[in-house]
Amino acid sequence: MTKKKNDFVKEITPMEEDFPRWYTDVILKNELVDYSPVKGFMVIRPYGYALWEKIQEYADARFKETGHKNMYFPLLIPESLLNKEKEHVEGFAPEVAWVTHGGSEKLGERLCVRPTSETIICQMYSKWLNSYRELPYLYNQWCSVVRWEKSTRPFLRTSEFLWQEGHTLHETAEEAQEETLQMLNIYKELAEELLAMPVVIGQKSESEKFAGAASTYTMEALMHDGQALQAGTSHNLGQHFTKAFEIKFQGRDGKEHNPYHTSWGISTRLIGGLIMVHGDNRGLVLPPRIAPVQVVIIPIAQKKPGVLEKADELYEKLKDKGIRVEVDDNPKESPGWKFNQYEMKGYPIRVEMGPRDIENNQAIIVRRDTLEKEVISLENFDSSTAEKLEEMQADMLKKALKHREDNTHIMEDYEEYKNKPEIRKGFAKAMWCGCAECEAKLKEDTGATIRCIPFEQEELSDKCHFCGKEAKHMVYIARAY
Amino acid sequence: MTKKKNDFVKEITPMEEDFPRWYTDVILKNELVDYSPVKGFMVIRPYGYALWEKIQEYADARFKETGHKNMYFPLLIPESLLNKEKEHVEGFAPEVAWVTHGGSEKLGERLCVRPTSETIICQMYSKWLNSYRELPYLYNQWCSVVRWEKSTRPFLRTSEFLWQEGHTLHETAEEAQEETLQMLNIYKELAEELLAMPVVIGQKSESEKFAGAASTYTMEALMHDGQALQAGTSHNLGQHFTKAFEIKFQGRDGKEHNPYHTSWGISTRLIGGLIMVHGDNRGLVLPPRIAPVQVVIIPIAQKKPGVLEKADELYEKLKDKGIRVEVDDNPKESPGWKFNQYEMKGYPIRVEMGPRDIENNQAIIVRRDTLEKEVISLENFDSSTAEKLEEMQADMLKKALKHREDNTHIMEDYEEYKNKPEIRKGFAKAMWCGCAECEAKLKEDTGATIRCIPFEQEELSDKCHFCGKEAKHMVYIARAY
Ligand SMILES: [Zn+2]
Ligand SMILES: [Zn+2]
Repeated sequence: MTKKKNDFVKEITPMEEDFPRWYTDVILKNELVDYSPVKGFMVIRPYGYALWEKIQEYADARFKETGHKNMYFPLLIPESLLNKEKEHVEGFAPEVAWVTHGGSEKLGERLCVRPTSETIICQMYSKWLNSYRELPYLYNQWCSVVRWEKSTRPFLRTSEFLWQEGHTLHETAEEAQEETLQMLNIYKELAEELLAMPVVIGQKSESEKFAGAASTYTMEALMHDGQALQAGTSHNLGQHFTKAFEIKFQGRDGKEHNPYHTSWGISTRLIGGLIMVHGDNRGLVLPPRIAPVQVVIIPIAQKKPGVLEKADELYEKLKDKGIRVEVDDNPKESPGWKFNQYEMKGYPIRVEMGPRDIENNQAIIVRRDTLEKEVISLENFDSSTAEKLEEMQADMLKKALKHREDNTHIMEDYEEYKNKPEIRKGFAKAMWCGCAECEAKLKEDTGATIRCIPFEQEELSDKCHFCGKEAKHMVYIARAY
Repeated sequence: MTKKKNDFVKEITPMEEDFPRWYTDVILKNELVDYSPVKGFMVIRPYGYALWEKIQEYADARFKETGHKNMYFPLLIPESLLNKEKEHVEGFAPEVAWVTHGGSEKLGERLCVRPTSETIICQMYSKWLNSYRELPYLYNQWCSVVRWEKSTRPFLRTSEFLWQEGHTLHETAEEAQEETLQMLNIYKELAEELLAMPVVIGQKSESEKFAGAASTYTMEALMHDGQALQAGTSHNLGQHFTKAFEIKFQGRDGKEHNPYHTSWGISTRLIGGLIMVHGDNRGLVLPPRIAPVQVVIIPIAQKKPGVLEKADELYEKLKDKGIRVEVDDNPKESPGWKFNQYEMKGYPIRVEMGPRDIENNQAIIVRRDTLEKEVISLENFDSSTAEKLEEMQADMLKKALKHREDNTHIMEDYEEYKNKPEIRKGFAKAMWCGCAECEAKLKEDTGATIRCIPFEQEELSDKCHFCGKEAKHMVYIARAY
């Protein structure tokens, strides 16, 4: 019965063969997640949730450092509130879940389960705000949201997901824009520093922006299979909501004004990105900073005198150094089985140590990303291990960046791009006139979309790749999750 | 417009005059919470949420220390799952919110917004569990739950609240009972160490236990007005759910068994308790360990040379000591106004320091609980302040304990208790035969209920106070929130 797990290691579909199945194998066999009895809703299991906790820890500290505080707003939003901002309701109404009964009574007005909280938060802000002296409002909420999705995939697109949503108000348009970009930059740092996941940052096109936003900024990452993932967004909402919800303050001039507004969010989707950027055919590969366990010590020939004692000694040493470490001294499984198991789980470093090693005052370290073995002296073992972890973190970012660069092409000719699916893998940089027609055509022809207008512009040509008219922007194009 | 806040300080209704209004004044004027557009749902504002974060931090660390890990289960539960455990559905069905539509489509089966997650979690556990080797299952979830309430009061009883729910499985009945009591003890320590809120722990009567539990254990605190608050519960669920949901494992004997099951929870209700145990007519009084800000420094005559510099120096010194400290150097408000403001907000210690004090190398410290002023040398000011905070934490627990003892009476005669409302304030200890009729009669006659059968039993008499038959237990009785 319990032997099921034994076979998992060998049961991951190679990614070259079937990438979606590889992904599903990795998340299910590592028990990151499971399907729930409600279609499209997922259970996040302890190993998956531990990754989310690390993301929360990093992000929450950065939010607080930059002056934000957390709040909690109600889960249920009256239909009439959702209807207040026209573009917003059009964007979200088709995908919300509706509560119609409380206990045995039918409700007078339907309530939706929040798909995002701009409306309820703006309603409260309009009640609270009086004077420019109280601005900026810098608040955030950690919660779950529900968006009824037809086709779902754990972490990447589910009908319920965990996220944070920041909602801020500012006296001036400039301050709101500054906040929008500040938070996008924090997201970029989180992606690169914590997840070792390089991202391109830039602005969304009109058609791809958030329902109700003045402008939406995004970070886009490239997955192993050459598809892009929108990994976090930050919206400058201008005065769209603050006018619709009549949020007003007395300004320095003694007159009434509507404040400027931002919102920004990252979600459990990041975990999907993490897996698809770093994973390989043996399973997960976790960057050390986010790994719930960074080092596993596997004693070899553990029945021999002194082996377990030495393993425990190493454990204590690494723990004292602040390294998240475990010893696996389960006598029922072989070292070889354990190696496979922890490779599948993506533990960054495994330490092998048997009687011979102890004699020589050494241990063997195997890095999960390179699978290279190295003999390390037990002298200063804690410092050597800490260094290895930092090296590995940096190398993983470099490797992912190289993968992105190798898979970022400059569009030569649109007809060629359209007709050769093999060159549509990865990002393509192209010039765009800025019109919605060219954007729609691209999507229809190829399934790829404009991921963003990157902040770092290059002038590849002065003509739009799609219509030949004058080009306005360079854009990143890709098929996306 | 902004002057509104100015008046708040004087606007708290004295608690002797109207305790519920005092409570409402304290929570609204301190901006802990606000009413939302949906009746019975509350917004937790930053100052209130910061209290919840401290509770989470303490509890989560204790859960992990004792081997528990966090997960996340879906918000929505199919009606058919809720129906699987008979007592459970009878207990919860009348108060759940029902989702009937996803997007524009009517659902085939209604989904309830989780009122608690036993059912969905058991469904998943039945899928996951194979062998006794995998036990115990020690998992917890932080989330919000919805229970449609007719009459609500912020923090104490709302249609949505934040909580944690632990859900564990064990091989034996003994282990499940041990876990149930271990978690109750952690709750008691949280209440007493962090919130300085003394609690009585014991077992709930049959009629008051959780829907579906074998036995429910509770901690009960006494509020300022003499009413009790159920502040946390831990349930031994026996095999009720594991049988209903067919959770099975292969035991050491090679045969199939149903595991034993516990669940336990604390919620944002604790914040209501915190307020009603310690608050006074000036507002909140926060025990130092949970206070988001522990010390506020208020410079006096701050325009005089050197005052602000000295205040900043103190600030840095306290901060380096790990004390959560703020300086209020707002030139637009007077020190007197500030004193009132921070007393209302319940900041544990305020430091006053003017040119004279600086000359004498001293500052004045005022403790929020006693309002006593003390002159403290600036020599070792950080250590003196840290000591004061710890003293205050201990004194607040002592004071609350004394209040409880002063308001815990031994029931002499039931008729007297019934007829004199004034002696029904506080806890009454009474002897009980254990029958449901006596319990129901007490409730009908007096509005008071059996809060618990405490672990610390005393034999006050050998007869039931209500029917005169043989007594089985001493119980704590009170009117409760
Ligand atoms: Zn064009
Ligand atoms: Zn009786």
